[in-house]
Amino acid sequence: MKLSTAQHRQFDRDGYLFFPGLFSADETRTLTEAVPELYSRREAYNVREKGSDAVRTNFAAHMYSEPFAKLARHPRMVEPVADLLGEELYMHQFKINGKMAFEGDVWQWHQDYGTWRNDDQMPTERAMNVAIFLDDVNEYNGPLMFIPGSHKRGVIDAKHDLTTTSYPLWTVDNELIRQLVDRAGGKNGGIVAPKGPAGSMILFHSCLVHASGSNLSPFNRVAVYLSLCAVSNHIRRHKRPEYIAHRDFTPIPCLPDDCLLRDYPVELPWKDGLPASALQTTSDDQRIAA
Amino acid sequence: MKLSTAQHRQFDRDGYLFFPGLFSADETRTLTEAVPELYSRREAYNVREKGSDAVRTNFAAHMYSEPFAKLARHPRMVEPVADLLGEELYMHQFKINGKMAFEGDVWQWHQDYGTWRNDDQMPTERAMNVAIFLDDVNEYNGPLMFIPGSHKRGVIDAKHDLTTTSYPLWTVDNELIRQLVDRAGGKNGGIVAPKGPAGSMILFHSCLVHASGSNLSPFNRVAVYLSLCAVSNHIRRHKRPEYIAHRDFTPIPCLPDDCLLRDYPVELPWKDGLPASALQTTSDDQRIAA
Repeated sequence: MKLSTAQHRQFDRDGYLFFPGLFSADETRTLTEAVPELYSRREAYNVREKGSDAVRTNFAAHMYSEPFAKLARHPRMVEPVADLLGEELYMHQFKINGKMAFEGDVWQWHQDYGTWRNDDQMPTERAMNVAIFLDDVNEYNGPLMFIPGSHKRGVIDAKHDLTTTSYPLWTVDNELIRQLVDRAGGKNGGIVAPKGPAGSMILFHSCLVHASGSNLSPFNRVAVYLSLCAVSNHIRRHKRPEYIAHRDFTPIPCLPDDCLLRDYPVELPWKDGLPASALQTTSDDQRIAA
Repeated sequence: MKLSTAQHRQFDRDGYLFFPGLFSADETRTLTEAVPELYSRREAYNVREKGSDAVRTNFAAHMYSEPFAKLARHPRMVEPVADLLGEELYMHQFKINGKMAFEGDVWQWHQDYGTWRNDDQMPTERAMNVAIFLDDVNEYNGPLMFIPGSHKRGVIDAKHDLTTTSYPLWTVDNELIRQLVDRAGGKNGGIVAPKGPAGSMILFHSCLVHASGSNLSPFNRVAVYLSLCAVSNHIRRHKRPEYIAHRDFTPIPCLPDDCLLRDYPVELPWKDGLPASALQTTSDDQRIAA
């Protein structure tokens, strides 16, 4: 799956590409149906919403769940990212974000690369975010919002917000958000929120500023967020546990295009539980030998 | 301003009517420009967001601000409500809700009449909500969401939510919300969120279930919420202060249609500050002689 010149230009200008309905209903169902059991587990990799038992984010399902292990190697997801970054990729982070009906809380405005740089010492922004909808996304269930073109601003100084939600995040200052939205068109296009059926995919630049609102609707809005990093750009510090920021920099080998609907062997190294090593972290001033 | 038969039918079926751009930009500006000074006051009638200095709701501005006193008597607002309720009206509640850029918090799913009954002992649901936009409303700044037809369910048992936000609210159970949304069309029309320019007006039934999301955008979404009650249906208890639930049951006299743009004398009984009586409340078991 090669992207067209127009898609390359669009990505460069806007910082994202939207592929509505990229995965079929049958393919998506293999993923969606696996989520409740994963969310029910009382494990470190399930982070729950503040003041609620609803899962905010599940980490590293591709290490212990067969359908998600296949998704992590799916050519329809990996190949366009490799095309945009022009290099082999490894999986830096793998999340299934809940944004559950009634309970889903906000994600404040942020760049993902801010976190990867500040926490993980990822050298440059040569990494890509991928969002895959496991539920239909509409205006009522807290869609992802982007400020088009905001990736051009490069890496933005951020402050570590430890209190707003249950998950610490390096967030962007309100005044700068106002400027970026104005520059992108204010009320006319300064914010966009791609909506579409389950199975849709968004690729977005690791410096693209994004956020999402609360979900007060009775519609779940579960989505997989994969972060693929160029192998040469692997992280240099292991301050966060391995289930949050992965340490295996082996290039992702793709499975065939029909992998979600057929049996293909995939390794599930954490299927019997998190190994102790996945919880180990290094202190602030330790760096990993590259 | 008489409503058409079609509008009466639509209100009966859906529980709301939307009038985009009912007030001109010039008229709306007289209101919007008065808000920052009102919000800056350190008074009991300004309720601020949880953990923030942004105003969540300002009460009773029609008692101390000239433009809002005129709005409270505006024929384009009062006459359609009188037409729908078929009786003279008094002002039960008058709020300017902030839903400010970046800071605006959610309002959970609720019926307004639930609060008026539980807290104020308003005998029946013969009262109407009016929302008037002072800012453009779009999908990003936390628009009001309705479940069409949910007013037909009548008064719903509610629980008093004292913790989610800074303002106590009688809220509706999630499972019932799910049922009401399903009945109204689920993902196809089960929730609606009228959007439009500043100056737009919504009339909605006091039993219509509604909510609104957080406002993460850089766009303020200030709106006036007026609650007009049939005079015969006045409240029987003064458990809440007078600036929240008014005690003057005199029918509203309308001003001319051009009142927002011209000088018309209006009384401002609280222009020099809240009188002590406006803070007095009666205990749970005291009732007001009708």
